[in-house]
Amino acid sequence: MPDQYKTSSYDVSFKIDGVQEPVTITANHGENILELARKANVAIDAPCSGNGSCGKCRVRLIGGSVYSKISRHITDFDFDKGWRLACESYVEGPSKFFVPDIAQAYKSRLRVTDMTSEREMRIFDKLLRELRETGITRHSGYFSAKLELAPPSLDDTMPDNERLNRSVQAITGKSDVSIRYSLLRRLPDILRENDWKVRCMLMEDRGGIRILDLMPQDDDEIMCGLAVDIGTTTVSVLLVDLESGKILSKGSSGNGQIRFGADVINRIIEQQKNGGVEKLRYAVVHETLLPIIHKLCDDTGTKMERIYRTVVAGNTTMTHLLLGVNANYLRTEPYVPTFFKIDPLFTREVGIDLSPGSRMTLCPNIGSYVGGDITSGTLASMIWNKQELSLFVDLGTNGEIVFGNSEFLMSCACSAGPAFEGGDIKCGMRATDGAIESCVIDPETLEPEISIFGDIAEKPVGLCGSGIIDVIAELYRTGAINGKGKFVRESPRIVRNEEYNTAKYILAFPKESATYREVYIDETDIDNFIRTKGAIFSAIRTLTMQLGFSPTDIEKVYVAGGIGSGLNVRNSICIGMFPDLPEERFEYIGNSSLSGAYSVLTSAAAEDKMFELSRAMTYIELSTQAGYMDEFVAACFLPHTDETLFPNILAD
Amino acid sequence: MPDQYKTSSYDVSFKIDGVQEPVTITANHGENILELARKANVAIDAPCSGNGSCGKCRVRLIGGSVYSKISRHITDFDFDKGWRLACESYVEGPSKFFVPDIAQAYKSRLRVTDMTSEREMRIFDKLLRELRETGITRHSGYFSAKLELAPPSLDDTMPDNERLNRSVQAITGKSDVSIRYSLLRRLPDILRENDWKVRCMLMEDRGGIRILDLMPQDDDEIMCGLAVDIGTTTVSVLLVDLESGKILSKGSSGNGQIRFGADVINRIIEQQKNGGVEKLRYAVVHETLLPIIHKLCDDTGTKMERIYRTVVAGNTTMTHLLLGVNANYLRTEPYVPTFFKIDPLFTREVGIDLSPGSRMTLCPNIGSYVGGDITSGTLASMIWNKQELSLFVDLGTNGEIVFGNSEFLMSCACSAGPAFEGGDIKCGMRATDGAIESCVIDPETLEPEISIFGDIAEKPVGLCGSGIIDVIAELYRTGAINGKGKFVRESPRIVRNEEYNTAKYILAFPKESATYREVYIDETDIDNFIRTKGAIFSAIRTLTMQLGFSPTDIEKVYVAGGIGSGLNVRNSICIGMFPDLPEERFEYIGNSSLSGAYSVLTSAAAEDKMFELSRAMTYIELSTQAGYMDEFVAACFLPHTDETLFPNILAD
Repeated sequence: MPDQYKTSSYDVSFKIDGVQEPVTITANHGENILELARKANVAIDAPCSGNGSCGKCRVRLIGGSVYSKISRHITDFDFDKGWRLACESYVEGPSKFFVPDIAQAYKSRLRVTDMTSEREMRIFDKLLRELRETGITRHSGYFSAKLELAPPSLDDTMPDNERLNRSVQAITGKSDVSIRYSLLRRLPDILRENDWKVRCMLMEDRGGIRILDLMPQDDDEIMCGLAVDIGTTTVSVLLVDLESGKILSKGSSGNGQIRFGADVINRIIEQQKNGGVEKLRYAVVHETLLPIIHKLCDDTGTKMERIYRTVVAGNTTMTHLLLGVNANYLRTEPYVPTFFKIDPLFTREVGIDLSPGSRMTLCPNIGSYVGGDITSGTLASMIWNKQELSLFVDLGTNGEIVFGNSEFLMSCACSAGPAFEGGDIKCGMRATDGAIESCVIDPETLEPEISIFGDIAEKPVGLCGSGIIDVIAELYRTGAINGKGKFVRESPRIVRNEEYNTAKYILAFPKESATYREVYIDETDIDNFIRTKGAIFSAIRTLTMQLGFSPTDIEKVYVAGGIGSGLNVRNSICIGMFPDLPEERFEYIGNSSLSGAYSVLTSAAAEDKMFELSRAMTYIELSTQAGYMDEFVAACFLPHTDETLFPNILAD
Repeated sequence: MPDQYKTSSYDVSFKIDGVQEPVTITANHGENILELARKANVAIDAPCSGNGSCGKCRVRLIGGSVYSKISRHITDFDFDKGWRLACESYVEGPSKFFVPDIAQAYKSRLRVTDMTSEREMRIFDKLLRELRETGITRHSGYFSAKLELAPPSLDDTMPDNERLNRSVQAITGKSDVSIRYSLLRRLPDILRENDWKVRCMLMEDRGGIRILDLMPQDDDEIMCGLAVDIGTTTVSVLLVDLESGKILSKGSSGNGQIRFGADVINRIIEQQKNGGVEKLRYAVVHETLLPIIHKLCDDTGTKMERIYRTVVAGNTTMTHLLLGVNANYLRTEPYVPTFFKIDPLFTREVGIDLSPGSRMTLCPNIGSYVGGDITSGTLASMIWNKQELSLFVDLGTNGEIVFGNSEFLMSCACSAGPAFEGGDIKCGMRATDGAIESCVIDPETLEPEISIFGDIAEKPVGLCGSGIIDVIAELYRTGAINGKGKFVRESPRIVRNEEYNTAKYILAFPKESATYREVYIDETDIDNFIRTKGAIFSAIRTLTMQLGFSPTDIEKVYVAGGIGSGLNVRNSICIGMFPDLPEERFEYIGNSSLSGAYSVLTSAAAEDKMFELSRAMTYIELSTQAGYMDEFVAACFLPHTDETLFPNILAD
């Protein structure tokens, strides 16, 4: 561009779908539109973090002008209507853009339910029962007590704090009682205003008792805690009664960091930029966690200051970003985290203002790519308590696998990418309202029969993980695609693009879709997914064979994660993601990271067990395992280059 | 006043001596000038907290008009010149006042010395030697270590915090190593920027090690600590090298709370007003402690964030006000404190920003009127290690007494008032530059021969505690006053005021004084002081007799406190303040509260000993002791109504 333009600056506005006021920012000539949107804190979906490959950062020019590169993701028709890829567009004058609400795709609207679904509750109940059977009872160590102190007199001038301590000692039998400073400051007035009758919120800690709060004696509000799963894509929170263990409410929403990239690698790259650590921390704490917590509190009439403990499970990158710790060294050789486990923090130190003495426990990470969500999930899977050889597979934004039983536990991560939660797939989305969660394709006509997630949506928005598996399995089964994932049949639903030498299968034409945009899967998507499923299968092979077993020795497979309960096991085997085992050996255990965090929140013994598991678990770095790459390449085929590994499926 | 004036408001300005810009505040008709000054944060000396009795809150009207009550403290001559008592004056129009710098009296200018005086150093050295002889060695538990970590590699991907912990474990032999959150956030970058070579600031804590700070390996700055004595009148601070125990600098200044009253009772009354708790806390933390700490740091080139620990000794009220804990219940029956001892705090929680993990230890209080300064002072007196029956007397703003030996320790407080530090005495002041610290009066001419504290002043400003004792003793010895403290001789230096039926002795006529104001002592002052010394003597009698001893059984008397090293023991006995014991049994041990805090700062064993002493010490509430009031009344005479108690003095 000519030099004289370089210092020019213009106003660029973003009009976000559903938001009244546009956001305006001053930009220099030549600035990138996606970068600009991030600077202005405007959320644009960009799973590939702006390298032009995913095609999701579509914005529509509604005024002014912009310089954009030509992209295969924007049709001529759409281009004429103003659609551009933000990551491939650059400021060349004052301009105004329409930005689709990314809630439609990843960042689904904040969802709060009074209770988790019936299916989820069954999972929780089963877990608690199984834990109890191993001797791990529900005892959080948090409890309240109503006390009546003897008022002081001239003959008894014991200080207020000692008077209270003695009363707590008397009911708990513990001699080491302590009170935090901010409560000490209020102590003399609280005691006297309530005529020496108080309700005391207490916590067991290292054999002693901490006084967390003091209330009037007739106070009856619930002592609450939070179980939190910080997923790369989705953040889920349970509001729990710490004394009874009852789940009061559940909320979840997309992780606000999504606009900085769909997977952990892109997030780390983004946080490496100037101010990035704080930006990523802010996105998950202030834009994601706090809104969920506020909503949970509002819906149940709970005050934030009645929350006394938080247990967080997240992968190694997510926990680093949550704490504002530079995660860059996780991404660069030799891939070293800053921490696996840390002492409990005060939640206010990470910017979450609950009860002033409220603490946060992080579920311990065990490897750079096997985090606290897997430690917590392994606890919830109960495989550590069984003799049978089990596999625990968490299919979230990444895939992590634990293999073992009561004797040993081995874990690894596979770079599966975010496809299970809809990332890297053009019409991919989370298992939320409007997602195609399962699909059957007519072998003759190739017409699809789909079912859609949620009670609200009648038309599809996109495809979630289980839907993608079904579509690929059906396309393969019907012979529409070959083992390499290329289209080999013709149909009105199969459309070829000669220019880019690719083809797609249309699940919903614009008029059939909720957003009036085609819902489809193309060969690039299928190829991405084949690599994802190949990563999972080769990881399972490598992990089991490492110990002299074969995948067919696995007696039980526990599947967890964002892929959703709609997972079709037969189809998963059919595409060669899971080993060819009888279907009854598979069990879906929901969000095991969250249910593990919940059991730690409500049981000190479960917490001890989780830390014990984290010490006992062996972590294998797949990339350094001899033979792994060959396994992976062999698995990048439908179902596998070695068909003898899938005798039952192929016999169908 | 007429109703129509009640809503009028005017500008009232205060021009403080030595300060360029006047402070202006809008006042309503009828508002009290002293209250107004406090609202405007203008320091006016008012030891009696505004009840008109002390006569110290003199301000000079230099413009406008004011309504003032007539006071015996303002002569007609001074009244004509505009002098008024602020506490007895009320707004009646726009007005402007000149306010003398109260630094002249109590709030002496901030003093920092490179080192404590030679005399003080001898006291410190003796204390450390004596402590060492009892097995209490100098080992603060704070130390630094230079570490070189093995850099991570693909074969060794241990997390950063564990890598550091192992290195600390290796040099300390302790397995429980922890790091604070704010340091964890910086950890990955610090380690890599310094090529895995760091200097580590460490602290022993409950059998484990806390990592307090990380620096480049070539860092050689000192790990500092603060020993603080928060007196009602004076605040003193030592900046100390935590590793060597070396005193780097000493600073002291008047307690900024002084404008809210000279003694603890008036301060508590003031903090009971709206916003008072915060006002008093602010005055001691932000207006007193922080300026001293800043000055100490500036003078020694120390950064605030290199201070890792603070030990504070103060009386029960001072520690409550420091922490912002409502002290009102100390003043009202049944006189109950909020705490005696508390767990260490983070200094930032009380508003002092040192190293982020820096903690504050409070020396424990043992009674509502026997505080941490006495626990700390008792430790420093060493009476707990001796067989001989000893008395430890701290003559500060109040008088506290400990009687005992290695077998037992008994303590009490006497409501001596602030006279030892110049309070309640019209020309009283602290033992600082310009104070008359000793005095001899010619028996014939009654002309005084005075000596003045400090190297600077040639002319006197006022009288400090030791000077007051000398003057009263000499006036009594020369027959100028009788046993009741009334003047019974005539002299050009004795001036009677017929109107108020009182008389005064002039130590310096205006031309002989540094401030061109008379330095004198009058019958009210003498009466105040007789009650003060009577309180001390009767407390000593009651305490010793309680255990079947007599004051003459006391084998050693350790005198500490603000009264200063100029104390004349013979004169103190002569006026009946101390029992009639041989002079050689008395020893002045300086600011024992500060030296106790210093030994706790530099020795974990001394800290343990102090807490042990606080548990062992018995506290006696004098006001509830039968016979105490009779003892007190009998002691309010020179030297005592029972002359047989002072055989040696009277034989002189």
